[in-house]
Amino acid sequence: MSRTTQGTPAVPGPASPPGGPAAAAGPEEARAAFRAGSTAPTSGWAPGCTQVNIISVPRDWAYDVLLFCQRNPRPCPVLDVTDPGETSTVLAPGADLRTDLPAYRVWEDGELVEEPEEVTGRWRNDLVTFLIGCSFTFEWALAGAGVPLRHLEQERNVPMYVTDRPCRPAGQMHGPMVVSMRPVPEELVGTAARITGRMPAVHGAPVHSGDPSRIGIADLGSPDFGDAVDARPGDVPVFWACGVTPQAAVMASRPPFAITHAPGRMFITDVRDERYLVP
Amino acid sequence: MSRTTQGTPAVPGPASPPGGPAAAAGPEEARAAFRAGSTAPTSGWAPGCTQVNIISVPRDWAYDVLLFCQRNPRPCPVLDVTDPGETSTVLAPGADLRTDLPAYRVWEDGELVEEPEEVTGRWRNDLVTFLIGCSFTFEWALAGAGVPLRHLEQERNVPMYVTDRPCRPAGQMHGPMVVSMRPVPEELVGTAARITGRMPAVHGAPVHSGDPSRIGIADLGSPDFGDAVDARPGDVPVFWACGVTPQAAVMASRPPFAITHAPGRMFITDVRDERYLVP
Repeated sequence: MSRTTQGTPAVPGPASPPGGPAAAAGPEEARAAFRAGSTAPTSGWAPGCTQVNIISVPRDWAYDVLLFCQRNPRPCPVLDVTDPGETSTVLAPGADLRTDLPAYRVWEDGELVEEPEEVTGRWRNDLVTFLIGCSFTFEWALAGAGVPLRHLEQERNVPMYVTDRPCRPAGQMHGPMVVSMRPVPEELVGTAARITGRMPAVHGAPVHSGDPSRIGIADLGSPDFGDAVDARPGDVPVFWACGVTPQAAVMASRPPFAITHAPGRMFITDVRDERYLVP
Repeated sequence: MSRTTQGTPAVPGPASPPGGPAAAAGPEEARAAFRAGSTAPTSGWAPGCTQVNIISVPRDWAYDVLLFCQRNPRPCPVLDVTDPGETSTVLAPGADLRTDLPAYRVWEDGELVEEPEEVTGRWRNDLVTFLIGCSFTFEWALAGAGVPLRHLEQERNVPMYVTDRPCRPAGQMHGPMVVSMRPVPEELVGTAARITGRMPAVHGAPVHSGDPSRIGIADLGSPDFGDAVDARPGDVPVFWACGVTPQAAVMASRPPFAITHAPGRMFITDVRDERYLVP
């Protein structure tokens, strides 16, 4: 797998929305800003509204993708699937999936060929779009419980790593699990696991904490997606299954065509994060 | 929809396993008894092991069934999907899905044509089998919290009803939501909702409690599947989404061929019920 197609997206940007909190008030305003050309990472935008990973594949690959997600629910929790060619979703009626993300990735035969701001010109009437839960959704719950979020403190995209853990394959779809990492003070690791464990629709409890080499990560300083984040003394690296996993599977499985979000540039839905909390 | 194809299965039997608790000790022993010819309902067998609904459809219907389940997770929580023609599942390695249930239903063009004890002769190499969560899984948790289970007290199959609530359709698959009903003492309805809400993989919290006519049920005494159950004074009818919903969709959507379990005659897996409890 070529590292050159995996790095931080070519569209840089700050972690917080321009114009301050007022500009980030609602999901419609956020999507309008991205439709108008902003390529900023979506972390911090429309707080309280669920952000999702996006992957669109031709209809004849949709069963394998859906089954891959069903068989790997920790990295790939499916929140909605569109009908072929559909450009909207029940999670955000009125939004346009082709224009309302900050940045996209276009894939041909598993190779990243383009990273455009919108994909209207690349759209196909046979594309089925999968909306997949994102760990951003549980960050409000972590913050509320006093678990510090180092990547937000440092105004960076969360770091993501390809592991050596294979996903359970489905038809033509196969690939390794991708994880996001957050440094957590050792005494709060249990709290973080308990809180996120109550949100199985957005990756649930961590899949690993501690030594990164145990899951095939050689260097925390060189994430495969996103930005490296500095740990503080006493922090332990905690790893959650990540919704970029389908992108890694696209790279490995080489469908003839696919469109995904650019890492960290998510689709912002109208759904409140609380909906995915098991009470 | 013809009532004559929906009633209590033709294979009657007691709610408890023959031979007492020892005979019900493990899932392998239970499956062996059904393979050997027992047609008893599975409630009370292999306590602590997860029982699942089964639906097998030809490969060219599998995407619509999987998407139907994804779009209707309350009635249709998918716990596993086999590859085409496969006769076993990761949830019970070594079991045979064609023989290890007490009774099956065979459907042609949406019509019930047969209710055999095994389906080896009806098997096809293009069949994809869906294993769908069952409310039996949360009954141990209800009992543990002091919520009485009237159908078990009365040694009956749980009653199930077709509602007037349509599921969200998916391709060719459409149909109404089916619910199971348990009479619950009024002061315990909140407890029952809280406990089952923590088990979203096995239908989660109730979809309704109280007046049955609000969800299109005319007469609690005439269930569409299973047995009528007597309420005690002070009981409130509480309704949970039910894994028989895909059978109702098969009746409505008329795939050319399908095999399902007979209501109340589930497939017993090796998985412990606790696995589906969100901590």
